[in-house]
Amino acid sequence: MRLRGRKGIRESLEQQEDMVVLDPRQYKGKWASLFGNDQPIHVEFGMGKGQFISQMSYGNQEINFIGVDMYDELIRRASEKGRIAWAEEEVETPPNLKLALMNIENVEEVFEQGEIERIYLNFSDPWPKTKHGRRRLTHPRFLDMYKKILNDQGQIHFKTDSVSLFEFSLNSFADYGLQMTNISLDLHRDGVNEQFVMTEYESKFVGQGMNIHRCEVIIGEAALEEYRRDRLKKYGV
Amino acid sequence: MRLRGRKGIRESLEQQEDMVVLDPRQYKGKWASLFGNDQPIHVEFGMGKGQFISQMSYGNQEINFIGVDMYDELIRRASEKGRIAWAEEEVETPPNLKLALMNIENVEEVFEQGEIERIYLNFSDPWPKTKHGRRRLTHPRFLDMYKKILNDQGQIHFKTDSVSLFEFSLNSFADYGLQMTNISLDLHRDGVNEQFVMTEYESKFVGQGMNIHRCEVIIGEAALEEYRRDRLKKYGV
Ligand SMILES: C[S@@+](CC[C@H](N)C(=O)[O-])C[C@H]1O[C@@H](n2cnc3c(N)ncnc32)[C@H](O)[C@@H]1O
Ligand SMILES: C[S@@+](CC[C@H](N)C(=O)[O-])C[C@H]1O[C@@H](n2cnc3c(N)ncnc32)[C@H](O)[C@@H]1O
Repeated sequence: MRLRGRKGIRESLEQQEDMVVLDPRQYKGKWASLFGNDQPIHVEFGMGKGQFISQMSYGNQEINFIGVDMYDELIRRASEKGRIAWAEEEVETPPNLKLALMNIENVEEVFEQGEIERIYLNFSDPWPKTKHGRRRLTHPRFLDMYKKILNDQGQIHFKTDSVSLFEFSLNSFADYGLQMTNISLDLHRDGVNEQFVMTEYESKFVGQGMNIHRCEVIIGEAALEEYRRDRLKKYGV
Repeated sequence: MRLRGRKGIRESLEQQEDMVVLDPRQYKGKWASLFGNDQPIHVEFGMGKGQFISQMSYGNQEINFIGVDMYDELIRRASEKGRIAWAEEEVETPPNLKLALMNIENVEEVFEQGEIERIYLNFSDPWPKTKHGRRRLTHPRFLDMYKKILNDQGQIHFKTDSVSLFEFSLNSFADYGLQMTNISLDLHRDGVNEQFVMTEYESKFVGQGMNIHRCEVIIGEAALEEYRRDRLKKYGV
């Protein structure tokens, strides 16, 4: 791979308008028209090098994916992975994948209320110091934002190696009154769980024998109702 | 300590009517009169040798405690620990401690609706095989029973070393629609957490460097309402 300076990276991103969105604010409320269809939209906040979002986009073509990160270099790497994931198809551009350069702090300026169906948080920075708690992507102030942009079927799917971030997040979800489900304290207990696409961090940590923690959170009203119907059937409560 | 045969143990229990309850069914709805007062009642289901319940009874004299187990020998050991915990006081009998010989399966025959304020589950048998899932004390079929005997302020406080039992239990609580709080994936992360009385199993596992998992579950309607008021104040949801 040719080494590029910062300027070279930015140039490369500018040449990839088909996939890379450098000013995502302009698409607030218009992501469906950017994709050219009404498929549900799943975003990964903090995608890093993009392995997960690339493989997800190729493996789930009835869904639109947006990978979010705040570094040019990561967007560039993810754009490469995105094209590689789709390399066997006769397309120039992965049709259901966009990579958005943005700070997750500004999520409400980029997505309209109810525009998103699922948020993936994979190996988010743990911010272990108590005084940095507000920066954790599962802090209630982020849940406030996520709740707004998620639709009727909205869910959050979260995984991490970090025991302390997972503990913080379980409490954050519980305190916020959210419905958790499919909680796992050791996702790859019985060998690599093929049901779930791995991220770069995940491959590394699993290789080191670390436990991966995972949980889903049901936010959208319709999804919640369905969940509660199931509960009533199963447990009578 | 003098070794005793099975018959000796039973005799010893029969001589301790002040503390040991060999046929707890007869007190259904009448535990307050057995204690002689209306203090809240906390029970530990599966107390083992009784260190936890003994120390709790001495340290929290405004609460009545019932330690439950199904083996004569454990009731006997717990009765010794109970008396030792209270040894410095001028009492013959710990006034707020009873030890009940029973199978937790029969909990509804022993406790009246709303008779109990708190259930402690400490290091319950993990029953790791899937086919034994129904025996785990946090299985929804037990939650059904606990819900009945708990009062308006009712809570379950659960701790365990077992990753798989804790995972099962989190899912069981969540699926059952219960409000969790104070979830910990490593209770003694910063050295032994003096806030919580340790059990025999806990001391052993902590000594081996294992993580202790803990969580509280809010069941009673009044406790839930209070919790929800706090949430509204804190998060506006
Ligand atoms: C620990 S990495 C995980 C990357 C990837 N999800 C994985 O599992 O391999 C966290 C990523 O989140 C990104 N990130 C952290 N905070 C962010 C923010 N406020 N806005 C956008 N991206 C952020 C970082 O740049 C980094 O790429
Ligand atoms: C693993 S030990 C834990 C003892 C103690 N709580 C501790 O942490 O040290 C579990 C205890 O639960 C008791 N137990 C298990 N199933 C029970 C049941 N169905 N009824 C009553 N006791 C039971 C066992 O006899 C045993 O003493």
